[in-house]
Amino acid sequence: MTVYLDHAATTPLRPEARDAWLEAAQRVGNASSIHGPGQQARRVLEEARERLAATLDCEPIEVVLTSGGTEAVNLAVKGLWWGRAADADTVVLPDGEHHATLDAVAWLAEHGAHVRAVGLDDAGRIDAEAFASSLPGAALATALVANNEVGTVNDAGALAAAATDASVPLHLDAVAAFGHVPVSFRDWRGGARGRSGLVALSVSAHKIGGPAGVGALVVAREAELSALLHGGGQQRRLRAGTQDVAGAAAFAVAAELAAAERETEAARLAALRQRLVHGILVAIPDAELLGDPIERVPGNAHMLFPGAWGETLLFLLDREGAAVSTGSACQAGVPEPSHVVLAMGRTDAEARQVLRFTLGRTTDEADVDAVLVVLPGVVERARAASGARTGAGS
Amino acid sequence: MTVYLDHAATTPLRPEARDAWLEAAQRVGNASSIHGPGQQARRVLEEARERLAATLDCEPIEVVLTSGGTEAVNLAVKGLWWGRAADADTVVLPDGEHHATLDAVAWLAEHGAHVRAVGLDDAGRIDAEAFASSLPGAALATALVANNEVGTVNDAGALAAAATDASVPLHLDAVAAFGHVPVSFRDWRGGARGRSGLVALSVSAHKIGGPAGVGALVVAREAELSALLHGGGQQRRLRAGTQDVAGAAAFAVAAELAAAERETEAARLAALRQRLVHGILVAIPDAELLGDPIERVPGNAHMLFPGAWGETLLFLLDREGAAVSTGSACQAGVPEPSHVVLAMGRTDAEARQVLRFTLGRTTDEADVDAVLVVLPGVVERARAASGARTGAGS
Repeated sequence: MTVYLDHAATTPLRPEARDAWLEAAQRVGNASSIHGPGQQARRVLEEARERLAATLDCEPIEVVLTSGGTEAVNLAVKGLWWGRAADADTVVLPDGEHHATLDAVAWLAEHGAHVRAVGLDDAGRIDAEAFASSLPGAALATALVANNEVGTVNDAGALAAAATDASVPLHLDAVAAFGHVPVSFRDWRGGARGRSGLVALSVSAHKIGGPAGVGALVVAREAELSALLHGGGQQRRLRAGTQDVAGAAAFAVAAELAAAERETEAARLAALRQRLVHGILVAIPDAELLGDPIERVPGNAHMLFPGAWGETLLFLLDREGAAVSTGSACQAGVPEPSHVVLAMGRTDAEARQVLRFTLGRTTDEADVDAVLVVLPGVVERARAASGARTGAGS
Repeated sequence: MTVYLDHAATTPLRPEARDAWLEAAQRVGNASSIHGPGQQARRVLEEARERLAATLDCEPIEVVLTSGGTEAVNLAVKGLWWGRAADADTVVLPDGEHHATLDAVAWLAEHGAHVRAVGLDDAGRIDAEAFASSLPGAALATALVANNEVGTVNDAGALAAAATDASVPLHLDAVAAFGHVPVSFRDWRGGARGRSGLVALSVSAHKIGGPAGVGALVVAREAELSALLHGGGQQRRLRAGTQDVAGAAAFAVAAELAAAERETEAARLAALRQRLVHGILVAIPDAELLGDPIERVPGNAHMLFPGAWGETLLFLLDREGAAVSTGSACQAGVPEPSHVVLAMGRTDAEARQVLRFTLGRTTDEADVDAVLVVLPGVVERARAASGARTGAGS
């Protein structure tokens, strides 16, 4: 058996998205060519852009297609930096952001940026007051809509309103949120116009059943954003390169299906997640659910197992045929404490004793129950291997 | 009918590449995840990287997968710039490079780079002596292997040797060359080691029958190159982001097929191109083949039609069902004179009176002959529309 509970790392390609990819990929024509085949490709591309815009609640022209979430985040953060007001040199950066953001900002810091950090509360939520008070005079701010590790959902509207009030351009990283919780560029933007407030929002296709290698950055019309990839004049000169028409078409189909199913899937996945969490807490009483118990990505169960190293748990579960994660896949393979869990005020040991179970479209009760069968023994062995005693208080 | 003679803009997806994409895309697992499904994805990815390396004649670890040629070029040019020696601030830039290079360097020029231009000869070839003499003290140099518009092939080995001699890091843009003329990173690199000489070479999948949205930059082990996309530690920390396993698998299949067929296809396409050029010159005696008649991409026929605007020719041919280009697709839609043709010493008018016919895998004699049937009338009408007399001397 393989029980796949790592849907936040990547989730299976939807058959409808695969078919859309196939149909578009088998046409010939570069969407930038002005002849018939090129214009046909262009129509497929622009229809995909329109459909994506509808699911993101923004204008089609605001959808800048990228090669994925990482490029979208890099374009937002660096693009806003290079396009910043001359007298601003500070980036507002909450703790616990995805590594795409952290590493992009770290690179900017090597090139003149000052970083103002904002703390998280013990549920992994960005401290909204601290965020607001850090904004005045900043070149840009960035924030996760939903934390990709612990699943806690921030009040994106409040963060955006604070950015509007402070006249600071804001990027929201919605990669882990899109398709799982309501995402509306228009609503969060509120009455904001001009180059500040919420101006950019990043999403990724393979997190919602689209193909890998495709993503988008929503960029408000008025945003002052520099391109990251220069070349042809594609996409408002914000993102050069031959456009991936098939990827866009597949992304649009996946986004529409995710949007259409979101409410019923959220309820279904929340119930499955509660079944998983309840089963774990019954069998392993000193385990603990991290993150906000209510305001979280429905399919995310982020669990602390005191005395058991996350890496060990992951390997032992893998041997039992269950695929989970210790955190962001982008950091997996490097046994480090989770910077998110640390930012929630936990110890270094606790930040190494976590597992992220993420449920998705293909997950059913049998998957959850199969993990519940093997997990107690796995935790026991991991604790023995870690040389730690079982029981609370690691 | 549609006769597609714009294979340099994009060429049809090979069925074998489509099948490789499908097989890989329908697996689940992020290649950065350390569980079983992740490691299976990783194996598919690394096998693709090995097969790509074999076709590029480099080491697998040197293949950095990107979202296409534009990203590869941007990563090379900007990455070498940010990783440059502290006392160097000059970029050696031949005239007639692709817009991805020109626009990336223009952006660097806004951020402190000085540009040293190198001229082309009247066949569109980079002046090798001028290139060599411009190198000393430069931060980096860049050059096309084959010109994407006029098809002329440079002596990449000589350009690389000059960079080695001058101890300057060189990027070669092989997007238009790969699959059409011999490309060997190892041979061109020669005995070069360390951070100078040929250190980076860019290629794209959709130019050789792979999918759009996939490319690669070959980066020598010793190169000092900064990442463009920051985030997870993927690909030697040179290119963050969830890796597109399916895209890589499809690219590898396309590259292998292109390599296996290259010599026979080169001969077949050169014969078809000669049939096309000969037919044009017989019917339209004052037309002219631009670029080197021998050292060129086999399927490229770049023709000057005195007195007829390229845009008009393109539209009229499109109406007759034939798809061609006036130059790089990335610039199409913007009726500008070709910067390549201008760099070859032609007039502004001549640089607007060119058409690029590019033949490819699916092209046969019937396609060529169909174009030859309609072209004389099209040129006549275009000349009338342009208000120019027919005949030589526009």
